[in-house]
Amino acid sequence: MAAALELFSKRDAEDVSIDDVAAAAGASRALVYHYFGGKQELYVAALRSAADRLESRLRPHEGGTSLDELASGLRRYFDFVEEHATGFAALLRGGPANRAGEVGEIVDGVRQRLFRLILRQMRVEEPSPVLRTTLRSWIASVETAGLDWLEHRDVERPTLEKMLVDHMVALLGVAASYDGEVAGLLERLA
Amino acid sequence: MAAALELFSKRDAEDVSIDDVAAAAGASRALVYHYFGGKQELYVAALRSAADRLESRLRPHEGGTSLDELASGLRRYFDFVEEHATGFAALLRGGPANRAGEVGEIVDGVRQRLFRLILRQMRVEEPSPVLRTTLRSWIASVETAGLDWLEHRDVERPTLEKMLVDHMVALLGVAASYDGEVAGLLERLA
Repeated sequence: MAAALELFSKRDAEDVSIDDVAAAAGASRALVYHYFGGKQELYVAALRSAADRLESRLRPHEGGTSLDELASGLRRYFDFVEEHATGFAALLRGGPANRAGEVGEIVDGVRQRLFRLILRQMRVEEPSPVLRTTLRSWIASVETAGLDWLEHRDVERPTLEKMLVDHMVALLGVAASYDGEVAGLLERLA
Repeated sequence: MAAALELFSKRDAEDVSIDDVAAAAGASRALVYHYFGGKQELYVAALRSAADRLESRLRPHEGGTSLDELASGLRRYFDFVEEHATGFAALLRGGPANRAGEVGEIVDGVRQRLFRLILRQMRVEEPSPVLRTTLRSWIASVETAGLDWLEHRDVERPTLEKMLVDHMVALLGVAASYDGEVAGLLERLA
């Protein structure tokens, strides 16, 4: 599994064969087929494993304000983006696999878990519509900034990470002018 | 084509058959096959036509500041989202079709054209890395806000549109603190 994840992270999935995975894992082609069934299944399994790893990395470390946690969470997110560069880009650009079905669910699952992590970190039980829209928008913009960064790498990563934290603060500032609850939240965060 | 677009806009593509399209267009099944080849081809053609329509709607009307234009552009964007609700949601969630290949290119093409429209409206020739990342992030967040709105419809559309304009201003404000050129741009926009 680790070997497959490594290969799918570094190369386009089209260019990874079962033979490559078998060779990297020091296993036979038959064994890989036996365990995973086929390349699409192997890709989905690798993706699921990558999603779990990302989630466990993003779990907040204790200490610091919510914004400190957000900053260090973004750093760990971009570590992940950088380590899995090709796979991340291919996946979010549509990828080799059908986005409907399992692959789409894994990607949406990561977004959902990120959303809940942020809510928990902000100590919000049930977000208002304005807060929900704001956080989902921010998550989408982080993903896109990640893709843009992989494509161009013409902004320093620490600068980009800092800018995205500033985005969150600015977007919450906008949300606060539409929703009194968010205004209270923003005071707690500072 | 109009009949196909109408059907794909209102229903999941899985639930649209060539027979449905033929019936809606008052044509024979054979004729639809003759012109489009198959359902996937028909879907791609409908999508391309929808993308062209969206683009022509978003072309700025003259007059007003850039922010006025952005506000009216967002209104036209959400008109489109609302008219093509099911198709829009299915497409951006991964959709029935493989996102790689033609469908992915059409979706990316719309994003690219939106990006260039906004640059032209802002009278920017070549965006700096910070401005590029900011605009792409904003476009992604508008898309996500559109999906979120279709799912929940618990924020009034005019409120959401106004909030997204405020997002743009707030994000450009952040960008300006990283990039002197954006600061100049922001003064011109106000």
